[in-house]
Amino acid sequence: MSWTRRHLLDIQSLSAEEILLVLDTAKAFKEVGRRAIKTVPALRGKTVINLFVEPSTRTRISFELAAQRLTADVVNFNAEASSLRKGETLKDTARNLEALQADIIIIRHSAAGAPHFLARVVNASVVNAGDGAHEHPTQALLDAFTIREKKGRVAGLKVTILGDILYSRVARSNIWALTKLGAEVTLCGPPTLVPRVFERMGCRVTHRIEEAIADADIINLLRIQHERQRKTMFPSLGEYATLFGLNPKRLARTRPEVVIMHPGPINRGIEIDSQIADSERSVILEQVTNGLAVRMAVLFLVNGGQGPRQVSGPERGARRAAGA
Amino acid sequence: MSWTRRHLLDIQSLSAEEILLVLDTAKAFKEVGRRAIKTVPALRGKTVINLFVEPSTRTRISFELAAQRLTADVVNFNAEASSLRKGETLKDTARNLEALQADIIIIRHSAAGAPHFLARVVNASVVNAGDGAHEHPTQALLDAFTIREKKGRVAGLKVTILGDILYSRVARSNIWALTKLGAEVTLCGPPTLVPRVFERMGCRVTHRIEEAIADADIINLLRIQHERQRKTMFPSLGEYATLFGLNPKRLARTRPEVVIMHPGPINRGIEIDSQIADSERSVILEQVTNGLAVRMAVLFLVNGGQGPRQVSGPERGARRAAGA
Amino acid sequence: MSWTRRHLLDIQSLSAEEILLVLDTAKAFKEVGRRAIKTVPALRGKTVINLFVEPSTRTRISFELAAQRLTADVVNFNAEASSLRKGETLKDTARNLEALQADIIIIRHSAAGAPHFLARVVNASVVNAGDGAHEHPTQALLDAFTIREKKGRVAGLKVTILGDILYSRVARSNIWALTKLGAEVTLCGPPTLVPRVFERMGCRVTHRIEEAIADADIINLLRIQHERQRKTMFPSLGEYATLFGLNPKRLARTRPEVVIMHPGPINRGIEIDSQIADSERSVILEQVTNGLAVRMAVLFLVNGGQGPRQVSGPERGARRAAGA
Repeated sequence: MSWTRRHLLDIQSLSAEEILLVLDTAKAFKEVGRRAIKTVPALRGKTVINLFVEPSTRTRISFELAAQRLTADVVNFNAEASSLRKGETLKDTARNLEALQADIIIIRHSAAGAPHFLARVVNASVVNAGDGAHEHPTQALLDAFTIREKKGRVAGLKVTILGDILYSRVARSNIWALTKLGAEVTLCGPPTLVPRVFERMGCRVTHRIEEAIADADIINLLRIQHERQRKTMFPSLGEYATLFGLNPKRLARTRPEVVIMHPGPINRGIEIDSQIADSERSVILEQVTNGLAVRMAVLFLVNGGQGPRQVSGPERGARRAAGA
Repeated sequence: MSWTRRHLLDIQSLSAEEILLVLDTAKAFKEVGRRAIKTVPALRGKTVINLFVEPSTRTRISFELAAQRLTADVVNFNAEASSLRKGETLKDTARNLEALQADIIIIRHSAAGAPHFLARVVNASVVNAGDGAHEHPTQALLDAFTIREKKGRVAGLKVTILGDILYSRVARSNIWALTKLGAEVTLCGPPTLVPRVFERMGCRVTHRIEEAIADADIINLLRIQHERQRKTMFPSLGEYATLFGLNPKRLARTRPEVVIMHPGPINRGIEIDSQIADSERSVILEQVTNGLAVRMAVLFLVNGGQGPRQVSGPERGARRAAGA
Repeated sequence: MSWTRRHLLDIQSLSAEEILLVLDTAKAFKEVGRRAIKTVPALRGKTVINLFVEPSTRTRISFELAAQRLTADVVNFNAEASSLRKGETLKDTARNLEALQADIIIIRHSAAGAPHFLARVVNASVVNAGDGAHEHPTQALLDAFTIREKKGRVAGLKVTILGDILYSRVARSNIWALTKLGAEVTLCGPPTLVPRVFERMGCRVTHRIEEAIADADIINLLRIQHERQRKTMFPSLGEYATLFGLNPKRLARTRPEVVIMHPGPINRGIEIDSQIADSERSVILEQVTNGLAVRMAVLFLVNGGQGPRQVSGPERGARRAAGA
């Protein structure tokens, strides 16, 4: 198959084949990242705009580097310091960016659905870098990439996602991606944050951590957003660490080959014990590296790239451009 | 003729021929913007610094993209977060940027005359991106470019500028550009903001909107800066919308081929009705696109470019640089 | 000799030969800066991250331009707006940047030792852009470069550093560099800020400015950080200007060929008289220009460059990359 979408708005609307095509393309770009010259000319002369209405230094840098490595021109539009404050609508902002001949607009927004709205009003490609509590598709793709890389497959694996599921776009996108690829997903956390309604998405829901982690191949720990957590629905940090934190004692009751994931940044001593985060079972930093490759793949595909075969040739061009 | 200036400080000191040379050069760059690879190597190895002492995300991004498309190295110097706060003078800041071998300094400043001052103390080229209530020359050039593109000429056209003329650098630069190019300019708005003294600049001044728009070929609506408008001189927003806002009823009394312009960002429902902003008569987004081409032309010319003929050839170079 | 270090953390641990190798390499890059195309492909495809946990627009821009001129991909990570605020540790931030395949991390941090800590936990090259009151090695290298350029040598020269020595990383790095290169260093300023303990670093300490400047070949004036100066240890600004400011009357009692230096930004009328700052004796702006060349040299060397001979050839490559 080949890629036909101009946007990446969510995981929900992707087919398993499309998800696998992104992973295969990302794999090819990960190879490029191991070369001495990590840049390829795939997006030369194209314009990428990072429209971050909700701040996120890490995701912004990951996308910025991905665009740079594809030789795109990239500018950052931090909406806090911008005309959005003067009452301009998101639609007008996006149309203005498009009028600046943006080929791809990467949007992070606190409102769920903002990327979908944008895709309806502009001709540029739109990539969702996280919208409210809705989806964070590139995070789910890099998580699936990492799982496949570590385990050789996703189908049939038991994946447990632990934490604040209800308000997590990372969880939502992961559930879509993992179930589409045939994994068995278990959700676990405080009852207020992990309601039974998620069973309708094809997941097992449990509020007992021992049950959630006992036979997991993968444990994905969500970040506790303690600075903005709803106080009425959430236990104290100490309480959370006690009830749901992954500590050595709990880890001892998991399968020996379990892989520990986290979208970062981690809260050491809260959702994850410091030792575990730094242990061989943790692939947290590999997720970051894979995020770069996945984002290169996404930018490449929404811009008209077809798939991994097109990626393999660029070294010659990059070398020539370097005058070597 | 050919371009001889090292700076673009204002429109007032330009000749009609110089203005037309910028427009012709911008036209050539607009063609480049339609190619698959929008980048040309005209400023390769040159350094452009965006010195924005007054924040403006949109103008900054337009200049940043223009510089990137010319393959310049470009860095942003946001003076709010900088040593300017520590008491450093503008002169010292500029000399430091020059010592960093800046070839072009683009300056946005709240003080009228700041770019002219800079041009006297540094050897780098200086481009005015808006100084106080004085001038915003690239805005006037992109407006003239847009008018000429839509109407085939500027000379002899009736152009009405509507809004807060007294404190508008956009109005001032537009008046200079349009009168130099032979247009008939009408100014309209509340009497406190559109004093008769502008008649000395060769404009017609009226405070009755019906009279101002009846026979206009172009209506240029200024943004109501309601967040910083002088309260004593300005009616309420509702009052302004009632008295001077362009709504369908008023539009019905204009010439059928009238073109509606606005420097953006627009206040829907205040100076312009939402329907009109999105109608076929509006060229607001085309102005944004043309702004990019005009700014490429300005950076190219102040850096020693001669005119549009030099622009036409770069695709070959860009292709070769891409290793194609 | 050739360069073997992966990091530039301080001056203290460098040998005189290593310092001279940086200066020689910087000299070659300064030549490059005089060409029409100032860019060389030495770091093409490499990723440089500016991790500025303490804000500094000027130093950030100098490093950013240096990286751009070496054709590196460069992104800015301003930690104030980042996840560091969410409680992430510096170690985790740095490991994340490394996981993004950063080749070089440039760090500015308010805590002394932060760059050394980073160098122990990441594999990327680390360059210290100023850590607390500890060191600011590239400033000392550009100062030594400037002195050598002006005087033909450093060994045997009498260099006086004037100001708040105790809390100055610039002073500390300069003392190491200058004494290693064989200069005679005199420190002068208020007794609370220039304790006798500095004599152990091989300097002469005096609190009488006339004695400090009488036979100096070089006078390096430190910036009075009046916005954050410790009130109990520091005289008023007026008092400082009277007691230690370099004014025409004092300058008249120095040697005629004395060279006046300052790391910038200057406080006109406080540590330096305005006339002197702008006089022929002042090399303050040349220091800025040399800073760019020195930072190019440092980035080049920590990335595996061997020395000045490798620099001389890139023009051919740059030309070819430009399609010329």
